[in-house]
Amino acid sequence: MNLSDVCREEIISYIHSICPFKLNNHGKMIRSEIGLLILNSIGYEIKKDDLKFLSVIELIHTSSLLHDDVIDGCEIRRNSSLNNKLAVLYGDIILININEILNEFNNSELIKLFNKTVKTMCEGEISQIKSESEIPSIEDYIKKTQMKTSSLFEFMVKGLFIIREENIIQELVSFAKNYGTAFQLKNDFVDVMTSKSDIKNGIYTASVIFSGGINITEDSIEKTKGLIDNYINEALKCLDVLEESSYKKTLTEVTKCLKG
Amino acid sequence: MNLSDVCREEIISYIHSICPFKLNNHGKMIRSEIGLLILNSIGYEIKKDDLKFLSVIELIHTSSLLHDDVIDGCEIRRNSSLNNKLAVLYGDIILININEILNEFNNSELIKLFNKTVKTMCEGEISQIKSESEIPSIEDYIKKTQMKTSSLFEFMVKGLFIIREENIIQELVSFAKNYGTAFQLKNDFVDVMTSKSDIKNGIYTASVIFSGGINITEDSIEKTKGLIDNYINEALKCLDVLEESSYKKTLTEVTKCLKG
Repeated sequence: MNLSDVCREEIISYIHSICPFKLNNHGKMIRSEIGLLILNSIGYEIKKDDLKFLSVIELIHTSSLLHDDVIDGCEIRRNSSLNNKLAVLYGDIILININEILNEFNNSELIKLFNKTVKTMCEGEISQIKSESEIPSIEDYIKKTQMKTSSLFEFMVKGLFIIREENIIQELVSFAKNYGTAFQLKNDFVDVMTSKSDIKNGIYTASVIFSGGINITEDSIEKTKGLIDNYINEALKCLDVLEESSYKKTLTEVTKCLKG
Repeated sequence: MNLSDVCREEIISYIHSICPFKLNNHGKMIRSEIGLLILNSIGYEIKKDDLKFLSVIELIHTSSLLHDDVIDGCEIRRNSSLNNKLAVLYGDIILININEILNEFNNSELIKLFNKTVKTMCEGEISQIKSESEIPSIEDYIKKTQMKTSSLFEFMVKGLFIIREENIIQELVSFAKNYGTAFQLKNDFVDVMTSKSDIKNGIYTASVIFSGGINITEDSIEKTKGLIDNYINEALKCLDVLEESSYKKTLTEVTKCLKG
């Protein structure tokens, strides 16, 4: 077991103590992975509080998935035996449990940012629902993506500095924003190339927007890849702030993974 | 316009500033009414903070109604033009907005109690969902009722003391608990006597429990009324702590209104 595995186990154990129902899977835990790599790459020793905070980040993601699955009327991703009625309430309880834990950090800036982040995520989702079955502009689509997804990546990075009462390294927040955007664009792109569940639900992402309709053109695929690459390149540029290390190298690789 | 109307208007104006969507009705605002009567009856001057706090209480109720309506798959009571997808997210945003406002009171006891109350309300709802289509014992039904409904009445009373940093008058908390129980039992009783929507949804309340099935007997109606009366009488006894006043008289009348 390497350090990252040990940390992952500890984050999962916090998650279990906070989550009011059995999680059948934890997903990729990409937010925690990035968070740990960032801490390592700037030479911070990883403390229990970091792992606790990262478990909160994973659970904000989990609670948003729960409510998204209810909204989409689909199977609950984190536990398929859970019905939609319970998912609404478990999502609420997770939010309250998170609030309790964040209050233990005794830092009003952290609470303010938590409130702002969850609200932004909800508002991103609301703007998606309100524009269902309409093809948005590429700008609106990116804005919504950043509200829904990047905001949590940004909160993750900011929070890791705030709980240590250290100055926030803004380049790393920009990294999180660009990485988060590329991550969601890539997810949406994969959906269009495989299950097309977004299209079926009237949610139109980059490839549809570039095609001007649901018949995806070759040209729009290239444009979508280009768009994702732009955010990956922006994210990579932000990593220049870090000194060379094996952690920086892994962070670079993880980011490049979103290519193609 | 009497004092109570002025306060009500101000509470509604706070509610509008906190709620992310248009509320088409505000319900009876019984929690605020009771809160104001309690403050008046112990001779406390009503301050802006009281009205702000009472608007939070109304909105906790509103957000729980939003999520309950989604769970029940029925029309959104507070705004029938709202669809269920948006109701999930608006409920989340209301909870976050409430958290922001409660943080302005700068009182960790208040936040802890808020977290505990919302969690208890959710857990009450969860226990109802888990026992759907089963006739519970009368004890379980009352326990669930107190979790779902009385806990918010209790938080309302406790909070009004906490924000003034005054000692909580426990008899008034007991009043809130008993009043809240009687209030919900009465609501459930009226449902059985009119629309029977609970029975249709497999939710079995006192009259069904006493009948031992969905064919309501005369005897069970009397027993249900007797049960409600017990909580009303307990609530009235708690009011003995108050000195005589027109406010205490109104509080007594409002409580007696729940009688059968």
